[in-house]
Formats: sequence, C-alpha cells, structure tokens
Amino acid sequence: AVSAPPATTEIKRVFTFGGGEADGNASMKTLLGGKGANLAEMSSIGLSVPAGFTVTTETCKAFHENGAKLPDGCWEEMLAGLEQIETRMGSKLGDPSNPLLLSVRSGAAVSMPGMMDTVLNLGLNDVVVEGLAEKAGEKFAFDSYRRFLDMYGDVVMGVEHALFEREIASLKRECGVVNDNDLNAVQLRELVKRYERVYETAGVTFPQEPLEQMRLAAYAVFDSWNSDRAKKYMAINGIVGLEGTAVNVQAMVFGNMGDTSGTGVCFTRNPSTGENLLYGEYLVNAQGEDVVAGIRTPEDILTMKNALPEAYDDLVRNTQLLEKHYKDMQDIEFTVQEGKLYMLQTRSGKRTGAGAVKIAVDLVEAGMIDRATAVTLVEPTHVDQLLHPQFKDEAGYAADVIGVGLPASPGAAVGQVVFDTPTAEDLHARGKKCILVRVETSPEDVGGMNAAEGILTARGGMTSHAAVVARGWGKTCVSGCSELVVDEENRWLSLGGVKLHEGDWLSLNGTTGEVIRGEAELAPPAIGGDLDVFMSWVDEFRTLRVLANADTPEDATTARVNGAEGVGLVRTEHMFFGTGERIRTVRRMIMATLTSDRQAALDDLLPFQRGDFDGIFRAMDGMPVTIRLLDPPLHEFLPDGELDEIVALLAADTGADEDEVVERIEKLAEINPMLGFRGCRLAITYPEIGRMQARAIFEAACAAQKDGVVVKPDIMVPLVGTVAELQNQTRMIREIAATVFEETGVTVEYRVGTMIEIPRAALLSDQIAGEGGAEFFSFGTNDLTQMTFGYSRDDVSKFLPTYLEKGILKHDPFQVLDQEGVGSLIEMSVNKGRGANPNLKVGICGEHGGDPASVEFFHEKGLDYVSCSPFRVPIARLAAAQAALKAAKEK
Amino acid sequence: AVSAPPATTEIKRVFTFGGGEADGNASMKTLLGGKGANLAEMSSIGLSVPAGFTVTTETCKAFHENGAKLPDGCWEEMLAGLEQIETRMGSKLGDPSNPLLLSVRSGAAVSMPGMMDTVLNLGLNDVVVEGLAEKAGEKFAFDSYRRFLDMYGDVVMGVEHALFEREIASLKRECGVVNDNDLNAVQLRELVKRYERVYETAGVTFPQEPLEQMRLAAYAVFDSWNSDRAKKYMAINGIVGLEGTAVNVQAMVFGNMGDTSGTGVCFTRNPSTGENLLYGEYLVNAQGEDVVAGIRTPEDILTMKNALPEAYDDLVRNTQLLEKHYKDMQDIEFTVQEGKLYMLQTRSGKRTGAGAVKIAVDLVEAGMIDRATAVTLVEPTHVDQLLHPQFKDEAGYAADVIGVGLPASPGAAVGQVVFDTPTAEDLHARGKKCILVRVETSPEDVGGMNAAEGILTARGGMTSHAAVVARGWGKTCVSGCSELVVDEENRWLSLGGVKLHEGDWLSLNGTTGEVIRGEAELAPPAIGGDLDVFMSWVDEFRTLRVLANADTPEDATTARVNGAEGVGLVRTEHMFFGTGERIRTVRRMIMATLTSDRQAALDDLLPFQRGDFDGIFRAMDGMPVTIRLLDPPLHEFLPDGELDEIVALLAADTGADEDEVVERIEKLAEINPMLGFRGCRLAITYPEIGRMQARAIFEAACAAQKDGVVVKPDIMVPLVGTVAELQNQTRMIREIAATVFEETGVTVEYRVGTMIEIPRAALLSDQIAGEGGAEFFSFGTNDLTQMTFGYSRDDVSKFLPTYLEKGILKHDPFQVLDQEGVGSLIEMSVNKGRGANPNLKVGICGEHGGDPASVEFFHEKGLDYVSCSPFRVPIARLAAAQAALKAAKEK
Ligand SMILES: [Mg+2]
Ligand SMILES: [Mg+2]
Repeated sequence: AVSAPPATTEIKRVFTFGGGEADGNASMKTLLGGKGANLAEMSSIGLSVPAGFTVTTETCKAFHENGAKLPDGCWEEMLAGLEQIETRMGSKLGDPSNPLLLSVRSGAAVSMPGMMDTVLNLGLNDVVVEGLAEKAGEKFAFDSYRRFLDMYGDVVMGVEHALFEREIASLKRECGVVNDNDLNAVQLRELVKRYERVYETAGVTFPQEPLEQMRLAAYAVFDSWNSDRAKKYMAINGIVGLEGTAVNVQAMVFGNMGDTSGTGVCFTRNPSTGENLLYGEYLVNAQGEDVVAGIRTPEDILTMKNALPEAYDDLVRNTQLLEKHYKDMQDIEFTVQEGKLYMLQTRSGKRTGAGAVKIAVDLVEAGMIDRATAVTLVEPTHVDQLLHPQFKDEAGYAADVIGVGLPASPGAAVGQVVFDTPTAEDLHARGKKCILVRVETSPEDVGGMNAAEGILTARGGMTSHAAVVARGWGKTCVSGCSELVVDEENRWLSLGGVKLHEGDWLSLNGTTGEVIRGEAELAPPAIGGDLDVFMSWVDEFRTLRVLANADTPEDATTARVNGAEGVGLVRTEHMFFGTGERIRTVRRMIMATLTSDRQAALDDLLPFQRGDFDGIFRAMDGMPVTIRLLDPPLHEFLPDGELDEIVALLAADTGADEDEVVERIEKLAEINPMLGFRGCRLAITYPEIGRMQARAIFEAACAAQKDGVVVKPDIMVPLVGTVAELQNQTRMIREIAATVFEETGVTVEYRVGTMIEIPRAALLSDQIAGEGGAEFFSFGTNDLTQMTFGYSRDDVSKFLPTYLEKGILKHDPFQVLDQEGVGSLIEMSVNKGRGANPNLKVGICGEHGGDPASVEFFHEKGLDYVSCSPFRVPIARLAAAQAALKAAKEK
Repeated sequence: AVSAPPATTEIKRVFTFGGGEADGNASMKTLLGGKGANLAEMSSIGLSVPAGFTVTTETCKAFHENGAKLPDGCWEEMLAGLEQIETRMGSKLGDPSNPLLLSVRSGAAVSMPGMMDTVLNLGLNDVVVEGLAEKAGEKFAFDSYRRFLDMYGDVVMGVEHALFEREIASLKRECGVVNDNDLNAVQLRELVKRYERVYETAGVTFPQEPLEQMRLAAYAVFDSWNSDRAKKYMAINGIVGLEGTAVNVQAMVFGNMGDTSGTGVCFTRNPSTGENLLYGEYLVNAQGEDVVAGIRTPEDILTMKNALPEAYDDLVRNTQLLEKHYKDMQDIEFTVQEGKLYMLQTRSGKRTGAGAVKIAVDLVEAGMIDRATAVTLVEPTHVDQLLHPQFKDEAGYAADVIGVGLPASPGAAVGQVVFDTPTAEDLHARGKKCILVRVETSPEDVGGMNAAEGILTARGGMTSHAAVVARGWGKTCVSGCSELVVDEENRWLSLGGVKLHEGDWLSLNGTTGEVIRGEAELAPPAIGGDLDVFMSWVDEFRTLRVLANADTPEDATTARVNGAEGVGLVRTEHMFFGTGERIRTVRRMIMATLTSDRQAALDDLLPFQRGDFDGIFRAMDGMPVTIRLLDPPLHEFLPDGELDEIVALLAADTGADEDEVVERIEKLAEINPMLGFRGCRLAITYPEIGRMQARAIFEAACAAQKDGVVVKPDIMVPLVGTVAELQNQTRMIREIAATVFEETGVTVEYRVGTMIEIPRAALLSDQIAGEGGAEFFSFGTNDLTQMTFGYSRDDVSKFLPTYLEKGILKHDPFQVLDQEGVGSLIEMSVNKGRGANPNLKVGICGEHGGDPASVEFFHEKGLDYVSCSPFRVPIARLAAAQAALKAAKEK
C-alpha cells in the first residue's frame, strides 16, 4: 500500500526509498545530495535499507526564495513519504504502541561540515517514550528521549548544548555517579524532566507533536545551508553552483529489541587474507554503540547464522548484491530488529596488502571486474606492505613500546642493539641480527647500516641520511626519535625510561615509527603468485617507465627483480665509501693540493669505479644505466668526529702533515654546503675528477660490450645551472669516450644529459636542451625542492612541523611533490626542453619518484620515466598504471 | 689634380679620403666597414687624416664569387685611389727619392678578430729602402723593411712568422745583443737579407714591385674573410648577413723625419679636472712607438706650439672640429711629418669623475650638447668616484703596496691598525683614525666597523658581511685578502712579508683592493656645484624611482641628502646590534624556551625598535619607509668564538644554566642556515616576535603622525614562499595595527607587502598578489640569486673564480644581475603580480639596486623603484636616467 505521489505537485520534491526500491539512484547527487543518492542506490539494488525519503536540494533553494517556507505541496509530499516509511517499517510515527522513530540529516551534493548534521530519535515525546519503554526497556527509552531532547534543542530549537550538559552534570553529582551510562531508569526520567525545563527557561516550547518535530527539523536543515559556517566552508573550499542541501528522513532501527534483534559488522571477504568468506561479528540484542563502546564483546558472525538463519541468509544475499554492485569487497554495518535485517552502511573495506592483491585477482577471475578495475583496487601502500617484513601482531607488542620516532623506512626489524659499524658487521658476519642505533648516521656508517636489520637514530628527519639510505635499501628505519638518548662511547641507550645495552634485543616498526623493547614476533613477507599476476596486469596499463636508483651491482639486481626497466640514477660517490681502501684513496684525492697528487689518487680510484660500473652494466644487460658524475661536497668524505681526531686520522691516512690537513679542511668547510662546492662545479674546477669517472664508465662499457653485454650508458651531469657548465662537461665526456673507443677498438652508444635540479636550469631548459645539447633531463626533485622553496632538507624540521600544523603547507614537500611551485618549474622545463629537442628523454630521480601522488603528476606532465629506490619500483609501477587509467577515464 | 673615378665602372668600388675630404662618411659602415667609414668621416669633417682609400665590402663578395679575382674595373679604381693618395701626400709609391709607404688593413661592418689585421710599411723594397734610409736614417729604414718582410710574409704570403723569429734570434745571438732594438743598421741590413732567404727557402717570391705588393695584400684581406677563424668567430657570435670585409689602404706618416716632425697625444680638455684647455704631450722627431715603449719622455704640448706654430694651430683647429663633431672631449693621436699635421686616431677621452661632470656641464653651457646628451656623458662609476675620498696619487704609493684583496667597497682610507671593536671605538672617540683588520667580520663587529675609516679582511667575498655593511655605509673596504695573516689575539698582521702591529699606519684603496703600508696622501672628495647641477638634469629624465636601504635614522638622513625618494629597506635586525643592552636582550629572547620568557625579552626590545622607527619616520617625513620584519637566522645573534666561551657568556647574559645554553645552541645550529629557520618562518613559529615588531612600527608611526610628520610605512614580510605564509603575517600585522590605532586614537595609512626572494614566490606571484593580498613586491635579488643558481654567497668563492676564468659565467651574479635566469623570474613575477593586482608597487632592494647594468634591466622590466645603499643612490639615479634615455632612443 505505497501511495503514489500527490498529483497536485508539479515538481517532484520528495524521493522515497526502502524495501528494495527507490525513486532515485546514485546518479542524482545534484538533486538528492550525496547521502540521499546513496541511500536510494542501495535501496534500489535490493538491499534491506531502513525506509526513508529525501527532500530535494531544489526544495532548499525554493524554501529560501519563498521566505523560509516550504513550497506549495511539499509538506504533503513529505507526509506521503512518511506514510511509505510507516508502511514499509510496519510502525507509526507517534504511535506509543508501535512507535516509528526517525533520523533527520542534511546532505548536499558535496559533503560539508558546515551544515547541520543529524537529529536522531525523532518522534519521541512524553507519551511515545512510555510505549518505547515497554518494548525496549525503560532505561533505553528514557536515555533515547533525553538524547533526543538535547540534540533537538541544540540543532533545531537553538537551545545551547551546554545548558543540557550542565543539567546532566549536576544530576550525576547528586546521584553520585561518574558516567552518563551509570544513570538508571528512574534518574533518566528525572533528567528528561529537567531537560524539558531547560526548554521552558530558554523560552521555547518543545514540540510534543511528532509531525511538528519533523517539520521543524527539516526547516533547521534548510536554515543550516545559509549559516555562516556553511558559507565560510564553501568560500574556503571554492564550492560554487550548489542549489542547497537535501533533507534525509529515515526510519531508525534498533538491535536491542530482544533476542531476535542484534547488530553486526562484516566484510564480504577476509580483509587480512582476501579469502572469499563472509567475515564479521554479531552481537545479539545490542545496538551498534554497545560494540563501539566496548561494553560487550561481539561474537563470530556464525552465531547469527545459528540464531537467526533467515536474517543471516538475507545478510548473505545482501553482501553478494553489494559486491556485485560495487565490484569490491565491502565493509558493512547492519542491524536486525525483531528478526528483520536492515543494512545501515556499506563502504569499500579496508584491507591488508595481501588481502588487496588476492581480492583484486579473485574478482577478475570471478568475472566481476576487468583487469583495469583490478589495478585500481590495490593501493600503492598495499604493495609496499607486501615487500617488507611485518610484525605478526602489532597490538600484541603495545606494552613494550618504549618510544616513537619518524617512520623513515617501512617494515619490521628485530635484532640486538649495536652502536657502531664494526660491531654490526661482526654480528652480521656471525649470522646474528642487529639494530644499529646512532645519534645520527653519516656516510661512514653505511657498512653498519648494511649489516643491520634496522636503523634507529635520535636525530634527522624523513630525508636524513639514515632515512634516505635505508629506504634505498628497503631496510627498516626509525629516525628522529627525539626522546632517545644514545651514549655511543659507553654503548647504551635510554628511551621511555628503559636503558638498553649493547646486545639487548630491540624491535623497530618502520611503518609506524614505534620502538619496541625485546623481540617482537615477525610475519614473513607475503609475496606470492597473486602478486606476480597482479603486477603483470599493472604493466599492461602503464605508459610511464619505471627505473630504479642503484649504486651497486646488487642494487641493480634487486631493481631488475622488482621490475625496473633500467637504472635511472647511479650515485657514483656511494662507491667511494665501499671499503676502507676506497675511502682512504678518496681522502688522499681530497687532501691533495697539487694536481699531480690528486691525479695519482684518482688513478688508484679508477679500477674501483670501473669494477662497479662493469657489474651494473652486466646486471642491467640491455637496459639503460644512468650514471651521475660526482655530486656531493668533498667534505662529506671526511671522517666524522672532533677536529683533532679527524686531523690525526687524515694525516695518518694521507701522509700529509697536520698543519696542512687543518688548512685543507678549513678550505673545504662551507657555511651552506647545499649551495656550495658540489655537483659539476667539482669536475669543472678539478677536471681530472670528471675525466677519471668518464674513463671508468667507458672502459667498463667497452669491456662488457666486448663480452656480448648490451650496454646503454647515459651519463648525467649534476647540478647544472648554466649552459656553459653542461657544454664544458659534455666536451670532456665526449673526448674521453673517443679516446677510450680508440684505445679499446670498441664503440659504445651513449647519451649525455643533465640533472635539472637548480631552478635556473629549469628556467633555461630551452638553452640546455638546445645549444647545451642535453640528450636527456632527469629532474632532481630533492634539490629542486630545496632551492625552489629555499628549504634545507637538513634544517627544515625547525619549522616544518609548525607549517604543517598551521596548514601553511599541506604536505612535507620533500615527500609529496609541490605541484604548484616545483611542479610548475618541471612542466616549464619539460616544455622548453622538448621544444628545443623533440627527442629529449625526460625523467625524474628524486625521492618523489616513489611517491604515488607525485608519480601521477609526472605521468600527467608527460615524463618518460620515474626512477626510485629498487624497493619502491613496484609501488611506482602501480601508481603509474593508476595514473594512466585515471587519465584515460578523464579523457 | 685628383682624378675622377673611371667611367667604365658601373659600381663604385673604391672610396677615397684625405685632405679634409672623403667620398664616404660614418653612415656607410655596411659598405665601407667600420674602419673605412670612420676614416671617411674624420676626413670629411676636415681633419688632416693621412690620405687613403677603401675597397668596399661588396667587392669582397664579388671577389669570392668571381673565383678569387677582383671584379672588372676594380684594380683600375684602386690605382686611381692610389694616385689620389700620392697627390695628397706629395710622395709616390715605389719612388726611392720620395717614397710613399702604405698600410693595408681589413675592416668589416663589425669588428672581427678572426680576420687579417694589418700590413705596415707596404711599398718598401730593396731599392726604396735605400731612399728611405737617406731621408729617415738607415737603422729606421732597415728596421721598417725587416718588419715589413716579416709581416707581409706571415699574413700575405703564408710564410710562418716563426721562421722569421728564428732568424732574428740567431742573429741576436751572433751579435751578442738581447733586444731587437739593439741591432744596429748594419746588422739590420744583414737581417733583411736573411729574411729574403726565408722567402726563398719557403719557395715563394717576395714581390719587389710595390703595386704587386698592394694587389696581393688586398687579396689576402679578402681571403681572410673566408678563413676558418673568421667563420668560427661569426658563428660563435651569431654574426650573419655581412657581405665581406673592406680593404683600407692608407698612407703611412712618420714623425721621425727630423726636427720638423714629431708625434703626440692630447685631450681636448683636461681629463682630470675637466678644464677646457688642450692637454697633451709632444715628442719631437719621434714615432708613436717611442712614446709607448717609454724610450723617450714626451714633453708638454706647448713645446710643439713653440717649435711648430703652424702645425700646432692646425692641431687646435682639428681638436675643435672634433669636439664639435663628436660632441665630447676627445683623446687624439697625431703625427707631424715634415711640418704637416696628420690626425691618426680620435676617440672619446677617458676622464675622472670630476672631469666627467665638469665637461658635461660645460658642453651644455657652451650649447654644444643638450642636457639629455650630457646625462649620457657621465658614467655611473664617475659619480661613485666623486662620492668617496680618493688618494691624491695612486702611482705614488706603488712601492708601499703590500698586498691586494677584493675591491669590496670603493674609496680611500688611512688609519692606524686595530683588531677589535673596543679599540676601534676608543680611537674613534679620541678623534683618531683607524683601520679595522679582521679575519672576517660578523654582526658583532659593526661597532668597530662604524668607528673605523676602513675595513680589511682576510676572508669573505664581494658580498661578505664586511663588504655589504661597508658598501651600505659608503665606507672603504678591502675583503678576501687571502695572503693576509691576522693574529687577532696578539694584535699583529702580516702581509707581503711585512708585519704590522696595533697602532701602525695602513692605507686601503677600496676601488682597487690595494693594501698600502703607511699613510698615503688623500685627496678630498670632489663634490661641487657642477655635480648638483648635473644630478638635477639626471632627475629630469629618470622615471624609475630611487630609494635607499637604511637601518637607522642617520642612514635615512644620508639617503635623503643623496636624493633618495624614500627608504626601500629597513633591516630591523640591524637595530638589534645597536648597543650591548640590545644584543643582550635579543639573546635572552633567543635563549628562551618558554613563550613567557621570550615575551618578556621582546617587551624589553620594543622601546628600542620603536625609537629607531620613530627616528626614521621623522627623517623621511613625507616619503615611504619600507620596513622588513626580522629576517636572519637567530644564531646570527649569538656571540662569536669558541663554544665554551660562547656558552659562558650566554649563561652570564641570560641567567640560564650552561647545559640549557648548550642544548639551545645545538637546537639553533643549522647545516644550511641560508635555507633554514629565518625570514617569516621565525615570526610564524614564534608569533610574539612579529607582533612586537608590528607594534613597534605602529606605535612609532602613530606618535610621529600625531606630531605632524607624514608617515608612510610599508611593512614587508621576508622570505615568503607560499601564499599562506603571507596571509598569516598580513593577518597578524593588520590585527596589531587595528589594536594600536584603537589604543592611540590615531590611524595611519600603511601597506603590507612581501619580499620576492624565493623562486617559488616568483613562480606563484599571481597568487601572492591575488589572494595573498600583497600591496607591493620587493625583489630580494641577493637571496633570489642564491636560490636560483644554487650558490651560497658565502661559499661561492670556491668555484666562482674558476667559472669567471673559464667563461662559464660572464659576471659574478651577486654583483651584476643574471638577466637570463634570475631576470626571467623577476619578469615573470612582475607580470603575474600586476596581472593579479594592477596597483601592485614593484621594486628591488638587493645589492643589484646600485649596479648600473642591473638598474637598466629593472627600468626595462617596468619596476617602480630600486632601493640601494644610501651611497649608491646618485649612481642609481644616473643609471636610471641613462636607461630611460636609451629606451626612448630605441623606441
Ligand atoms: Mg641533487
Ligand atoms: Mg633576503
């Protein structure tokens, strides 16, 4: 007996839903608001949604144009809608024996915090509450009533919430109870009386008539559209063109109406494993709040199957409908009221990485979605999870968390505490696991970092040395743990009141930043066949190429295994730290004041570099290898510590006298090393350095090619700011190449290009790709971000937290590319560069190469590739595929 | 008896000049080349130019198209030209008794080093040389002949110069002489023979026939047009569209033909004082080379008046003609050959600042030029000279120069050596002059710098602290004197092998960088009535406004005296160093860990700041005063020295315990302070700092306005990179303004704007002027240059010298604005900013505001003003006027 809409209304203003039917659907957001359209959609696909109706957004507009009155016929439509609700729910508004309670909510086309949110339990009054008390118990009824009086007063009648708060506080004092929930039925009755007096004192009348309650609530929703808060929200967020808000009136359902009632939540599949089985919890004779508040512990969903088999079957039917409709695993809230199932909410379910991949693959195999859709169902962070070890039970170790630092490099690590590289290497050599703990790390610590399972530092941000190196290796790192006290000399640490000594066990969660004492239990990384299948689909849709940053043959192999299509960045200086002999030779080179001494040290370095390049070329057989010439300031290669110790060490290492060493160190010292003597400035000032590196590259390339390896070296000049710098370096590289080809009788194809990491280079990219002759650009977004913002990565922690907190920055620009500023320079550079050289290859090799949002930007701007840490290659591949799919959809 | 050009030639290919007449003139550069057109011009206005002719550039083209042959009729025209020369000079090519010698030179429309330059003494052969020997002496004749053989062989006949060199070297060995000039006539005769044998050995014949010599020389000039060197030069310099080179054949004249011959140089006016009197030197019976080589000492020009009154009168007539024609003081070379005057060269004469201003003013008063032209006759460096003391005689102190540093701030200074601020201040207080010598200066040294006459540092570039502060005060400074050893503790310096102690006398030339021991004699700065007249003309043509950077009421007064139209930059932090009490209060503020302690220190600082602002507002009554909020990193306010000393001092000053002080200092330390916690990042993180500064500004402004002063405060937010930063600071400033206006009952008009000194701010200038609400932009070109290039000003000395030497940079970008890179950001910012806010006021307050080339750029790009050091205001005014005149001319 659903009545037809009254014929007198020209414009349909009220859209009903419920009982597996609806007047509207999901496409009608403009007219019904987001919430109304979704409720209609759920109902229309056959779900057991509590019945209700939506008054359109147009009505809101008409309401205001009409001098805050409902347009003609609207109220009649709402009454008809109410009648439908009553019919579908089998209860009646204002009927004490069988009361229908309603919720009233606002809902514009765009979700807006500025508007009135919700009135619950509408329909209660002094009479109806007694009827409800009989059905559902006195305490529940009067608690619902006092909540309604408070909420209704506050949002509809303009009676301040604080006035009600004052009453409940004084009543609790009188009764000697602490929590609202401790008030008994008698006390709640008294509270209702006092709340009614609050209305009287405020000079307003609480409408006992439920229809009047509904009318005024609808008015309040419409009024809230014109509130200052809503207007301000729209202004700030640039929301324009909306007609108004809709009003959603919906039946409330109760799971606490006895043993044939209950409440539950479920996932349509297991969110941890992806297994295709209903997974959830059910609590008999309870409301959802009881579960949330933790008052009662829910049971497995199978208890519902036994207790209420019909409702359970209905639930299964609903979950199947939902998966089929939304084409994804759903997270569902439901209530059973007196044996009848109501679906309250559904949304895509959160899942683990393993779950996400299995669900995506299963849905494709079941024919429910295509591969493109599957690719959008797995988030890049899911893939990240799959690639790192995880703890078996993160909740389980909560009591042992002794501190939290920055989640600098994800994963889980467990080992014995060590404080220096020799000890770390020693333990590692003996097959033991260790955690390297340092105040902060420097390039000298890389041996120990490599040997350790994880790294913990007291200082340094997300882009500190420790963080960057650890991410590069896919190794767990917690950095900047400011509470941590480290005594490296006496080999102890103290954190959260706990003091640990060398050899004590420690666990690190690099995904959350937690530092855990003892050995937390690890789960193995869950890479399986599903992931391979899934990643092969990813590559079908991806157009952006994904390369990896790799400094050693081992890195290169890892990169290839993870699907890299080449090496986008070899930081040649990392090779300089490889062994004690290497770093000593580098220091001899740095300490040299005569060119001949410098040349001699470089001659000794050549075989090391050549060997590393050889290994990388062979590992990347057939793929491009982009080699960056020496980049960091020379003083980075000096030892750490107190000046006198450094001097003594260097004097011993290099054979120079101490005064000479001091003088040389003073000359190398810089006030702003980031803007100092580094990058191509080094090889232009000391040409013999660049010549050694170029020779090492070409000798290795020629030898490998002779052995049948397909070598594709791309030589990259760092920190170019002027065309002349690039020309100088290109000339040097081409001269060395010609010499080596002549010497070896082998000719290798190679390209010469440049980092674009200085704003000036981006601005003059036409020249750099034109007369500069760059064959490729690789954006160094770390440096470019530093210089475009004027932020030193090493010092930004002094103000960045404040900036993020105050909303001055939305993200840390070293993690998520600043598209407006740095991005506009990149776009300008790509366009200018390609304008001058249409064959220009363009990529990016900064930290942002592994950040999904940034990858999407690089795809949009037409870059040819991104290069990131080998461990982020799968993430970048997925992000690139998703970007391509998004762009195709938007086209 | 000058013959008419032959009637057979359709195209005129040969243009003659000489005897006060010419076929061509200065406008015919394309056809006659630059040199030919100028010779024609000089002759056509009546000067006694040695006769000659020019073969046109078109002929060069025809020559090559014609298979390296002269076009028909050309040779005949050249012969006719030669006849004219012979007639005009009264001598004859190849006539031993009265020989005419010729020079042959190339000369395209654009001066090109790639082409053949000159053949001199053409016309000599084995017979003619004997005739010349009779007239001018045997040594002269054979020396001329051997030079001709060498030069002709090298550039015309393709006989290598080295072969001739070998001969002269072996002859000198044989004769036991060291210098070419020591060879006597007999030996030179022998050398000529040997040179002739060089030709034979090389298999070429030296043409004895003078006409053949001329013909082949002309061919060689035309051939040089197609040389690789010339082509490469044109390619590199982008020279296109030229037809070819002209050939200039001109009679040679000799000042060494006896006592009625001579040579001289003169200025049409005194270049030092500008006095309108012929000023020059004359040497009887001599060639110009004799003067240049310093073999003989020339005498005053009046000796010529006495010896050769007719030639002298002719010279005076010629100089008057030249001034009238070129409308400027000329620097002239001339020769008298047997009583007849020949003008060899004329060009605008170099002059001192005093001379330049007087000449410009005199020329206007004489009606020779208009004021606009006068403004272009004085260079900005001339004005600079006039504003600083100079040494009386720079050559005079040459023996006492003990070292050279960077010319960091111009002028001359003499005083007693001191090594610290207290001693400098003490001497200054006792009316004594001192020179402050430091390894490098820091803000703590400003007291001593102020008290000293000049500053000398061992470290630091043109933009080091010492240099910037000294230029700001117009105080002499020599910085970065790398050979200088300073022992500040034991109070001595050592330089160039000389050790000086405290109290010894020292002189500094800040214009050349020379360090002079003892007291060099000073000339007073030569500012007089002419300068005032001249500067008033400058302001007639200028459209760009010139403001000054001023940090104190005294600076502001100086700025106003020098013609500043307002203050474009008050660096509020400079006030913090004013007295011991101030800096101690600042340090208390910095050391505070609690906001309340910081606030208390700020409360104590407020009256100091307010007092300074009050003084500046009153000094600049009616003019805008642009005040920048706190900019430098806080650690700049900490004391210098060893850590333990600093800690002890700070603990004493602030009452904190030493551990706290150490911790605080460590927190303040930065790796790249230039990119760190500074600028508006400070006042956003510690809002109380900005509030104190804003309050000081508005309280001072209201008080001054109450007293009838017209105050125009412009408040400037430093280091803005995001719109949100500016919005945050603008909101704070406007709130404080409203509060102070309320408190005082006075309302002051003010503007809020921002520095544009971070690349991102330039890129997003539309937002910053739009929703950011900036009312003005001031480009901080120092920081903008640092970040656009990625160069730290403090560290750039490590590679900048190499970059300048290798031509990678044309200029130090901190001295001369990089128009391509930094300039393009400025242009983009101006356009975007004005696009969003058409009323936006745009200026620049970096070091470049006082650099003439940069000022021209700022004028071109439509900036409203430049702001520079008070001492550079007149320079900027002149540069701005010249830029406006240049732009008007180009329009
Ligand atoms: Mg870089
Ligand atoms: Mg600045």
